[in-house]
Order: sequence, then structure tokens, then C-alpha cells
Amino acid sequence: MAKNKNSSSSDKNTVLLYGRHPVFAAVSNPARRILKIYASAENAAEIKAHLSACQRDNLPLQIVDRKDIDKMLPREAVHQGFALQCKELENYSIEDICTLASEKKDCHILALDQVTDPQNIGAIIRSCVAFDALALIMQDKNAPAETGAMAKASAGMIELLPVCRVTNLSRALNRLKQDGFWILGMDGYAQTTIDQINKSGKTVIVMGSEGKGMRRLVEENCDASVKLPISPKVESLNVSTAAAIALYEINRR
Amino acid sequence: MAKNKNSSSSDKNTVLLYGRHPVFAAVSNPARRILKIYASAENAAEIKAHLSACQRDNLPLQIVDRKDIDKMLPREAVHQGFALQCKELENYSIEDICTLASEKKDCHILALDQVTDPQNIGAIIRSCVAFDALALIMQDKNAPAETGAMAKASAGMIELLPVCRVTNLSRALNRLKQDGFWILGMDGYAQTTIDQINKSGKTVIVMGSEGKGMRRLVEENCDASVKLPISPKVESLNVSTAAAIALYEINRR
Repeated sequence: MAKNKNSSSSDKNTVLLYGRHPVFAAVSNPARRILKIYASAENAAEIKAHLSACQRDNLPLQIVDRKDIDKMLPREAVHQGFALQCKELENYSIEDICTLASEKKDCHILALDQVTDPQNIGAIIRSCVAFDALALIMQDKNAPAETGAMAKASAGMIELLPVCRVTNLSRALNRLKQDGFWILGMDGYAQTTIDQINKSGKTVIVMGSEGKGMRRLVEENCDASVKLPISPKVESLNVSTAAAIALYEINRR
Repeated sequence: MAKNKNSSSSDKNTVLLYGRHPVFAAVSNPARRILKIYASAENAAEIKAHLSACQRDNLPLQIVDRKDIDKMLPREAVHQGFALQCKELENYSIEDICTLASEKKDCHILALDQVTDPQNIGAIIRSCVAFDALALIMQDKNAPAETGAMAKASAGMIELLPVCRVTNLSRALNRLKQDGFWILGMDGYAQTTIDQINKSGKTVIVMGSEGKGMRRLVEENCDASVKLPISPKVESLNVSTAAAIALYEINRR
């Protein structure tokens, strides 16, 4: 049983995280399978103290030149002298999410229909944790894999949020409906604004991709549509901004 | 008089905007001094129709190869086959802002204390327009100049928002106080959450830089401090996300 779990974890892709928050959060996460940590000489004491505090002194740490970390990463990556090679986090299944929700009276989940920008997804993960979302559900196809840029935009919060990638988002929404979730689609053309809805119970907020919005089949699986009350001068908000406001609002209950 | 205005405008820096929304919004803005428009061949009809609709057919338009626009811009810039060379927008003075506010009973302004990332500032401008802010005030020192990346992150909304760059933010806040503005500082350590405040009247929301927060002197000039109700798991939100939620909340009145 344990062997199976290990072998499934070693099948996962390797990811290079960077930046203080993502690296420290990964070290603090017992579920993160870490291969190697890199820190620049001036950061050696800080990372060692953190490894010790997390009782993970046994992890392989290499003290390198700052420029060596530069070379591992894209030019624009702000690494602050920290990088970490690890395996992708384990995916949560929709049944795992239903189990987590079964213990709750009120809770909310965010679902993304083909949002593609890793920066947006990272920012959305940070907002999910800030506003107590139970999980993030993503359509697997056309969504980016876990990356260092995504972890960075999440400020390391990717370590704290159950993420569930599904092959069929409509089917996942239907499964959640069976367990009493109310499915709320965000749609700029909706009649109702999000502050007017009943926030008690279990809710899934569904966001479409920035360019195209929700796909028709996903939209048909929503119980209701709501919009944010924005000025008519603005066509839309960035998807991560819209998600943050929706999560803030649903979490006011 | 007119001559003075022209000469002050020609002293301004030249900016290269890119992307459909920023370029179209600049063309629609009579206050934007445009030097040249570039469009790729497949976009020629679309930009010509827009110029015509705005009665700006007289503007110099050059149809170029998409690759020529690539060469004008940083590698990561998504230009969608549109670029536009123009002068920076005119700065609003604090007295201009007071004049705009004098006609209002309820209004709100966002003030940034040394937020430095052009992407964040662009996203904040978009949220300001979405949530009906009267203006954006920025400390001039340590804040970036208007750039193509900023206009792109604002989705062209930079053309619609009065922006006032000041040399001394504390002095500007005091000037606004004289005209009846209530100065509200966003501070993660505040006791009160933003949804608990009285939203009527005139309010300035002040946001500090992401790393350091507000400077002490700016903080001392605030009438009250408020925070967003975020989970203790999260140290802070991205400054543009926090600004969007604060603007959404203040605009609920």
C-alpha cells in the first residue's frame, strides 16, 4: 500500500520552485517530496534554521553561488537566492474533495474552466487560502501543470490548498451537486450581483477563462449565474481579481 | 495659453503602448497625444474602422509585418498585432482632484505609497475604473513612469482614470482632508475589517508597498486603519488583489 503510494509519487513530474515564500512553504509541507534545495551563501543560515525548525535537516541542501540559481531559471524569475527541486504535489480526486466537504456545514470551492495563465492560477490559489476555500478544481485539459511561476504567484500557498484536476469539469460539478453543493457561475451578463445571493451552505464558484468565459456545457451545469457589480466602462476584470472578490464575498457568511 | 499647454505636452516622455485594448482605448481618448499607430496587415481593417469611428482618420497609421512589432517590444509582450507611439498622459494636480471631488457627495480615491511594480499598478488602475474611483494618487518618487506594460495590465483603462503623481503623499492626503476626505489606511495589523466602516462621504484608501507597507509618516496621516478579513494562514494578499477588494467594498454604498 505504502509502496504503491511511493511509486505513484515518483511518476510525477519534477518541478523547480524558487523564491523565499515558495521554498520555505514547500519545506514546511510534509506532503511535498523534495529532491534538492539550493540556497545562496548569504541565505545559508536562514534556510538551515528553517529546515531545523521543520525537522527536515536530512534534506539535501546545496549552497551555491547566486548566479548558479540565475542559470537554472528563466531570466525574469525573482528567486531571492532560493530554489528547490521537488515532485509535483499529489492530485486530490473529486471523491477526496467530497470527503473533505462531508465534515462541513458551510464551505466553498472554486472551480476554473480552462484558465490557462500560471500567474493567474497562482494568484487565485493565494486568494483561495486567504478566503478559506476548501479546494480548487480545474479542468485538466488546457490548464497548465504546476510550475515554479505558479508557486511563486501563490506566495507558497500552493502547499496549503487541495487542488483537484479533473478530466470533465461538468461531471465533477454534478458529483458535487449530489453532495448538496450549489453551483454558482460567474458571468458578466448575469442579472444578479454576487452580494445578493444566499451564502450559507455549500457553494462552488465557477470562473470561465478570461477570453472566452465558461463553456456552454459548464454553464448549463450551474444552478445560478452571478456577476460582480462593475462599472459599464470596464468590459471585465482580470480572472484572478474577479476570483478574489468572489471568494471574499462568499466568505463573508 | 494654448501654446503653453502644447509645449508642456511635448516635454512629456514618449511611450510605446501595445495590445488591442490599450491601443484602441488610446485612440478613443481625445486627451492622448498620439504620434504613430502600427498594425499588422491582418488587423488593418479593424484599426481603420476604429479610427474612423473615433473621427481620428488623420492619425499616422503604418501597416507593418507582425514581426516588426515583435522587434519593437520586449520578448514577453503580447501585442496582438497592435502598437502605438504616444506621449505620456497629462498629470492631474491635487487641486485638479479637489475640483473633481467638489461636485460629489460620496466618492473615493485610491492612494499608493511607493507601489513599484508596473503590472500591479496597471491592474490597480483597471480596478479603480471598475469600482468607480474618482482618481489614483501616487507618490512620484519610487513609482514607475507610465509604460506599455502598465497600460496593458490596465486593459486600456489608464485612458479613463485621472492619475495624480505627487512629490509628497502625506501633504496630498492633508490637502484632501481639508476638503472633507476621510483617510483610511490599509494595514494587515489593524483591528477593524473594511466591511465594518461607514462608507458614506468622501474616502481615500491608502495602500502601502507590498514588501514594506505604508511609511510611518503616511500612516500617521491616516484617520483610521482597516484590514481585509483574511485567513491567518496567509501573510498578506498581493497589493493589486487587496486594492481590488478594498475598492469593491467601498463602492458598495
